Parts: sequence; structure tokens; C-alpha cells
Amino acid sequence: METTCSPSDRRDELACKRMREAVAAWEAALGSRHVILDESERRAAESATYPTRQSIPVILRPGNRAEIQEILRIANRFQVPLYAVSTGKNWGYGSRVPSAGGCALVELHRLNRIVAFDERLAYVTVEPGVTQRQLFTFLKENGSKLWMDATGASPDCSLIGNTVERGFGHTPYGDHFANCCGLEVVLPDGEVARTGFAGWKGAHAAAVYRWGVGPSLDGLFTQSNLGIVTRMTVWLMPAPEYFQAFFFRCEERHGLGPLVDALRPLRLNGTLRSTVHIGNDYKVLSGIRQYPWEEAGGRTPLPENVMSRFRRQLQFGHWNGSGALYGTKAQVAEARRLVRGALRGNVGRLQFLDENTLRLAERFAKPYRWLTGWDLSRTLELARPVLGLMKGIPAEQTLGSVYWRKRGPIPAQPDPDRDGCGLLWYSPVAPLEGSHVERASGIATEVLTRHGFEPMISLSLVTDRAVACVVSICYDRAQAGEDGRAMACYEELGRSLTEAGYPPYRLGNMPVKGAGSDAIGEKLKRAFDPAGVLSPGRYARVD
Amino acid sequence: METTCSPSDRRDELACKRMREAVAAWEAALGSRHVILDESERRAAESATYPTRQSIPVILRPGNRAEIQEILRIANRFQVPLYAVSTGKNWGYGSRVPSAGGCALVELHRLNRIVAFDERLAYVTVEPGVTQRQLFTFLKENGSKLWMDATGASPDCSLIGNTVERGFGHTPYGDHFANCCGLEVVLPDGEVARTGFAGWKGAHAAAVYRWGVGPSLDGLFTQSNLGIVTRMTVWLMPAPEYFQAFFFRCEERHGLGPLVDALRPLRLNGTLRSTVHIGNDYKVLSGIRQYPWEEAGGRTPLPENVMSRFRRQLQFGHWNGSGALYGTKAQVAEARRLVRGALRGNVGRLQFLDENTLRLAERFAKPYRWLTGWDLSRTLELARPVLGLMKGIPAEQTLGSVYWRKRGPIPAQPDPDRDGCGLLWYSPVAPLEGSHVERASGIATEVLTRHGFEPMISLSLVTDRAVACVVSICYDRAQAGEDGRAMACYEELGRSLTEAGYPPYRLGNMPVKGAGSDAIGEKLKRAFDPAGVLSPGRYARVD
Repeated sequence: METTCSPSDRRDELACKRMREAVAAWEAALGSRHVILDESERRAAESATYPTRQSIPVILRPGNRAEIQEILRIANRFQVPLYAVSTGKNWGYGSRVPSAGGCALVELHRLNRIVAFDERLAYVTVEPGVTQRQLFTFLKENGSKLWMDATGASPDCSLIGNTVERGFGHTPYGDHFANCCGLEVVLPDGEVARTGFAGWKGAHAAAVYRWGVGPSLDGLFTQSNLGIVTRMTVWLMPAPEYFQAFFFRCEERHGLGPLVDALRPLRLNGTLRSTVHIGNDYKVLSGIRQYPWEEAGGRTPLPENVMSRFRRQLQFGHWNGSGALYGTKAQVAEARRLVRGALRGNVGRLQFLDENTLRLAERFAKPYRWLTGWDLSRTLELARPVLGLMKGIPAEQTLGSVYWRKRGPIPAQPDPDRDGCGLLWYSPVAPLEGSHVERASGIATEVLTRHGFEPMISLSLVTDRAVACVVSICYDRAQAGEDGRAMACYEELGRSLTEAGYPPYRLGNMPVKGAGSDAIGEKLKRAFDPAGVLSPGRYARVD
Repeated sequence: METTCSPSDRRDELACKRMREAVAAWEAALGSRHVILDESERRAAESATYPTRQSIPVILRPGNRAEIQEILRIANRFQVPLYAVSTGKNWGYGSRVPSAGGCALVELHRLNRIVAFDERLAYVTVEPGVTQRQLFTFLKENGSKLWMDATGASPDCSLIGNTVERGFGHTPYGDHFANCCGLEVVLPDGEVARTGFAGWKGAHAAAVYRWGVGPSLDGLFTQSNLGIVTRMTVWLMPAPEYFQAFFFRCEERHGLGPLVDALRPLRLNGTLRSTVHIGNDYKVLSGIRQYPWEEAGGRTPLPENVMSRFRRQLQFGHWNGSGALYGTKAQVAEARRLVRGALRGNVGRLQFLDENTLRLAERFAKPYRWLTGWDLSRTLELARPVLGLMKGIPAEQTLGSVYWRKRGPIPAQPDPDRDGCGLLWYSPVAPLEGSHVERASGIATEVLTRHGFEPMISLSLVTDRAVACVVSICYDRAQAGEDGRAMACYEELGRSLTEAGYPPYRLGNMPVKGAGSDAIGEKLKRAFDPAGVLSPGRYARVD
């Protein structure tokens, strides 16, 4: 027990005493094998992909909702804080590390049941431990004709975890929080609440109608510290008759604005029903390979002449996009015509690809190159997992890019937290307008470059009117001084973008800066969690 | 002043004294011409389309947000309750009548500015007094290529009022609350809060990205008494290249289930992007004409043999539906093929109609009848306003049906509250499955018929997975005993449907029954409105 708490003054001593008593109570409630005091396990949980100082005195692994309720009651009794994660793979946003020091970490991966499934109405109801992989396998094993939406993150990410962080994916169900309902939540005082019609005994529409009657409360439990979500219904998409992906590239650094403006009408009129993702050259290269140390002569950041050689050699543009079309053959054909028309003159190359074409291309990549001069093989290597994501197939490969600046090879079982991968994500939101997207990505490029990092940027047209710009600061935590430089860069990036009018869509374990007063947030926290035991500081606003 | 309060005991006397003091303070704050004590105005506001007993001591008409803040501060100072409405045309759900007696009525129609408009990103930001008609006119006058979504209610209904009640319309933007963001809200304590990025100074995505960062709070201010919404961004739809409506009818009473099941896949796969509305024969007849007293020999409810004669004569079915297709010519053509395929064998007649066909048909209705034997003229009379609604044109005509059982003609300026029109709406939600929709509408039919009312039912496929069944109890308040019979019918209808698992999507000034405990609701009300001054009892749960 001594390892979990090292008091430096009397106040700390009292806190330590309370935590010790709470741990004893938790051991009695959960069984001691689910109350982890082991130092190496705690140290691992304290590691994110950027420097953090928050210590974790104990890890709790409840097996069901009743145990979570008991955990919270005990926390209130002893006035000790806790921090809940689903599977804790929130890489780039803080992993499992709490937003405040001294929190017991509550991991929910043992709650991993798919508790309901309806093929006709196209939904599943899941617990927080259910991962992307698990749902995908479940659907396959049940011969389901439904597609899930997957994020590009690890297949072992929690569906609920991603949804309550308001993550997004690649299909028409890509805005995850817009495609769920019926939350079951353990409130900080240990009470259980259910949102929408899930709160009504026997309501048939509990899993299909979102708002219920009376105030709609789902939003309260996303990006918040007002409750622990223990169940959620996730809507699924019926597999379309036909599916086609498209890939495009834009050779001009300044081509981004017109490109975004050309896509907006297709998003707004429903032709593009899913997110279009656009990545810059740095983003693409980091997806293909690790940092080219040799070509760069060991220097960082990557010199432009090296980058430009890769663009030519691997045939990608300054901006590189992908999207997908879903429907009947005729619906897709018409959408293809519209996409082609919109992108004409705005992109250097536009390529449509379906499963058949891809299989064919994989077979004939070499002769194709010989005929056309275009080397498909690299494109195909990148295309396969992206094509999968567009059909809701979780991708194993995407984790590789986190190892961009690492000197060694990517391990067979990657673990960015363990392996000292440096990754900070900052994701400002801009209106779906060329000028705004150019301005936000311009700021990011300038700040990252000045701090010695490659300005990796992807732009996701997440809704009909907005773009989430995901900016990655990718570095090697093993390099002396890099942690500090990355944090300084991150601070400036956040400040600059917020001041320019582009606050982020998500933050993880960092505080929210620049938002101004928060009358409602404070009222809510006091009302739900007067003792402040649950995830203190999470999405808290600071000046 | 004596008219506003008639104390019957000492507690009432104290309440009267406080209300008198509050009125004086409100007069000082708003100017006395916006503080209405006139008895006839108050009596009018106390009238809904069903019996209510709640008295209104005073009506307040603030002109801006600051005055609303002051109204609430005064309410808290003197501990008097108020009830806020936008334009107050919540017919069938309680009109302007508060959910509790003795509330000052706050009417917001003077806040009627369209404060922002963006053609490219397709939105307007409005105040609560902005009506459907006002926005429609505004868009026309600005030569906008955007369509609003209109409900079938009066053109003089408030956009915000309808949205915070979670009303729905006819276009792909029909789920109103799903297509808005950036709420400005005066909280019960007089503080102002803004949701999403609207709360961030200078955030460019305030009007285009819904969730913001941190908990999403929009839902808190719908169907609730936690704040007065003073501003909201409403998303608009770019006018499609082409538009086509479809109308179908089903001659079999038992054809509803298969019909709903046939439509579900088209809703789920995105072919039908807007609500399909299905009305039964009673619903249709009440839209065409008032009660056929002569044909029914003065009896109520309408005998089946009279109804069946009307079905034949006016050529509608037991179930009658409409929907619309939006897109390019090719997109609509493909959707038409899919709708035709899905409905084949499930409907007796399916008719597609666009603006050109309609104009032509209107011109050639008589020769067409001569050629085909099908009398289009009645269909056209009904089709024109429905077609308009599908394009976001508010309809004047829909109010007529409220006068169904009235003996006199419909006045040129209809006012259901003033004219003693009896209307109670109860709107259970069912999954988008034939068996559920049949069961819910079966219960409604049985209960209404047994109580002597025509079972008017419409089924709206409001989302991809759910149906809102709007059941209308339409009667004449001037007939002795009818008020009581209608309320008894309403009570039983609500109880039966809730017990069967079909709670309503909306209630208005009635309490929520059958929901069970409400841990969160109570916490929220205490946190936001400790003195309970704002709209007490609104969406309150009772046993």
C-alpha cells in the first residue's frame, strides 16, 4: 500500500489515509484481484503519448454495473477521486491518464457484453468494454448484413469510449454521437439513470428513438465528468447493394481551399453521405513509412526537398483525399458523376475503386504500371485498409504512424504508451469553407514547422457544414528535450487556433482553455457530483 | 390589479401580494404597455383546445434578452412563477396555457429578428418570435436558394417554439431538433448561457458544428423548464435540382403493417431522406372537409358506412401516404424505381407528382378523369399544400381540420383557442416495424371509437428507425359534456399506449405519466432553478 501514496504534508497524509481506507473497501467490494496496486501496472497506466505527472494510486476493474455503483459510493464515503475509462486507448488525447493526480483509475473493459442486437432495426446495445473488433466479429459470426462504423484507431478501442469522446469514422454513420441512443449511466452518487425512452419500463422505441420525452440528456454524458456510461445503443448501417471508394490528390499546396469549396455542395445536398478525409503529404507519408532518417541525413524536421522527392516517388500530392459512395449501382453511378464534376479542375487525379477493381488492380499492378506509367502498388497498399474502414472494417495498420519518429521498427504488438511514441492531437473545428480550412491548417503548419515538427494534418468533413482538422505532433519521447518541445508546440498551437476562432472538438485529459465562463458546467457538476469524486478536471474550463 | 389574483386563504394572500409586487417591478422594467393585466387578454391566453383551469394573473411581453433576464430576476426576488412561450400556438398540446396555475405568462413574439443568415453554409440564426412565414418570406426576398423545413401547423408558429418541442416537418430536415445548434438561453436565475461553440468568443463554427467541446447541452433546453431559449441557429436545405412527391393509398385496413415494413429499408438505406406521412381515412377526410353532419344524420361518431361511401367517392384508402424525393433528376429517378419496387403489392395506387405534372394535372383534371376514370381534382386539392410542405412552404390550410366537428363554417381568420375547437393530440412513438405500428394504432382506434370520437391517426416515419403516431381527438368544445368525454378518452389513451410500451414524443402542458423515477430531472431542476420559478410542472414526471 505504501507505493500508492507518498504524503509530503499533512493534507496529503489525510488524503492518503482516506485513499487507503477506500482501497480496503473496494477490495471488499470487488475482490482484491480486481483492485490493482502493482507498481508496474500503475506506472504503465500513468504513461501517455506525451508527458504527464498524474499519479494513479490504484486501478479498479469492476465486472458489472452494481460494482461501479459501489465503487462510486465508496469514493463518496471516503471523499477520494476516481477517473473512469472504457478501454483507455485514447492515444494522442491522454491514453488512460487521468485529468488530475491521485485518482483511482476505473477500467471498464470487463463489462464487455453485447446485450442486444436487432438486424431489422439495425442496432446493437453494448457495454463499455465492447471493442470495435468484438462488434465486427460478432456481426460476421451472426451473418449480419449490417455494417458498423469504425474509427481509424485500434480495433481494440471501445465503441462507447470513442462515442462519448465524440469520435468519428468513415461511413454514413461516421458522426458516432449522432448515431447512438439510450444511454445507461451510473451517476457520481451511485444512482443509475437511463436516457430517452431507455428510462421507461418496456418502451419499445428505447433503442430506436433518441430524444424520448422531456429534456434530452445524452449530450450531458459525452466529453464530461457527470457519469459513467455503462450501456449504449449504437445504430448500424445496412450494407448497401453497392459501394465505391474514391481517392484524389491535389498537387498544389494552395489547392486546398477550392477543393473544400467544391466538396461542400455535395455534402450539403446528400450526395456525399459519409466523411471525406483529406490528408496532407506529411500525414500520408507517416501512414506509409517511418521517418526517412537516411534520406534526411538524420535531421528533423523533414526537409522540403526530401518530402518533394517522396511525393514524386510514391505519387501522392500535397493534399490527398478519400471518400465513399453507398447505394444501388445507379445511385453510386450518379454520385460518381457528381463527384467527378465537382472535383474537375480541383484535383490532379481522381480514382474510383470498388472491391472488384481493387482485387483486379492488386493482381495487375505491375502490368498496369507498365501500361500507364502509374504505380498502383503503393496506392493499393494504402487503399486496402482505407477501403475497409469505409465499410466499417476496423484497421490494424493505422497505429503504425504513431511510430513515425521512432528509430527502431514498429513492434508486432504496438503499444504507443509503452514504447515512448510521442503523439499529441489537437483538432480544431472550422466551417466547411475553403478560406477557413486554409487558415486553420495554415496556422497549424506554421506553428508545427517553427517548433521542428512535421505539420501532419488531416481534414475530415465530419458533418455537412463542418471540418475537423486533426493536427498531429508526432515525435520520439526517447529523444532528450523532445517532450518539452512538443508540449510547447502544443500549447502554442491550441492558443493560436483558439484565438483565431478554431477551438477543438475534443481534448481528453487536458483542460479546456479560452472558452470563457461556464455557468452551466459549474451548476451541473455541483448538482451531479457535489463531492467532486468523478474525473475531476475532465473537460474543465480554465483561463 | 384585483382581477389578477383572488386569494382564498392566507397562503394565497401572500402569493397574491408577491405577484402584485412582481407586477409592479415588471412594469418598471418593461414599461406598463408590455405588462398585460386586461382581463379579456388574460382569459384568451387561458384558453386551449381542451379544458384547463390554470389562471394567468399577468402577461409579460419582453422586447429583448435583457428584459427576459430582468423578468427572471424579478421572479426570483418575489418568488413568483412564470411560464414562457414563443408564439404560443402549441395547439393540441395546450396552446399558451401554463402547466401550472398562477404563472405569469411570458410571450416572446416581440423578439422576432433573424440575426444571421449564411447562404453558403445554409443556416439562419433566429429569435423565438420568428415564425415560419417570416423565415419563408425572408428567404424569398433574399433570392435564397435554400429551403426551410415547415411543419403542417400555422405559418405563424415560432421556429424555436416548434424545435424546442421537438416538432417535425416534411423535408430531409424534418427532425427539427436534429437540425439546429448554438442555443442562447436565459437560465432561470437570469444568467445567459450559450451551447456548443456559440459559447466561445469568435468561434467560426458556432453556427455549423453542433457539439462544441465538453458536454453537449442543447438537449437540456428542449421539452424542459430549465431555460428560455432566446436564439438558435436553424440549418436550411439547399434546394435540390429536382423534386418529386409521391402519394399512395392502401385500400385494406390491415395493409398498414406490410406497408410500414416495406418502407423501412428505404428509410434505413437513405433512399427516403425525408419523413413519409401516412394518414388513415378519418385523418384524410378531416383534411378535406368538416364533419358530414347531414350524411351522418346528425350522429357521432361517424358511422363506418358513411366513411366507406366517402372513401369511394373521394377516392382515398384506409391508409394514405405521401413522401418526397430530392436530388438530381437521376437520383430521383432511381429513388422512384426503389419506392415503386418496395410498394408494389402493398398499396392500391401509387402516384408520383412534380411541379410540372401538378400544373398540368390541375389544367387537365377533367379530361384526365374522362380518359382514366380517376378523379384527380380532390387529390390535387389536397396535394398542393402537401407538395408545398415538402418544399418547406408553410401551409395555411392545415388548420381547417381542427374545425372538424364545429357546426359553423371555418372562419377566415381561424383561432382554435377562441373558437372552441376541441383538439387533443397524443403522439406515441413506435419502432419502424409493421407489428408495432399496427398495435399502437390499433389501441388508439379502439379507445377513440369506444369514447365516441373518430380515430384520426397519422403515422410519421420521423427517423430511420421510429414512427411518431399522432392521434387526434377532435371535437366541439361547445357541445355539453364533450370536454369531459374528450379528457376521459385522452387519459385512457395515454395510459393504454404507455402501458403497451408506446410513450409519447411530446406533451405540452400535461404532466409526464408512467415514466417512473427521475433522478436526473430533479437534480437538474434544483441546480438550474432552485426557487422553481420557471414553468413549474412543465414535463414534470408524476406517478
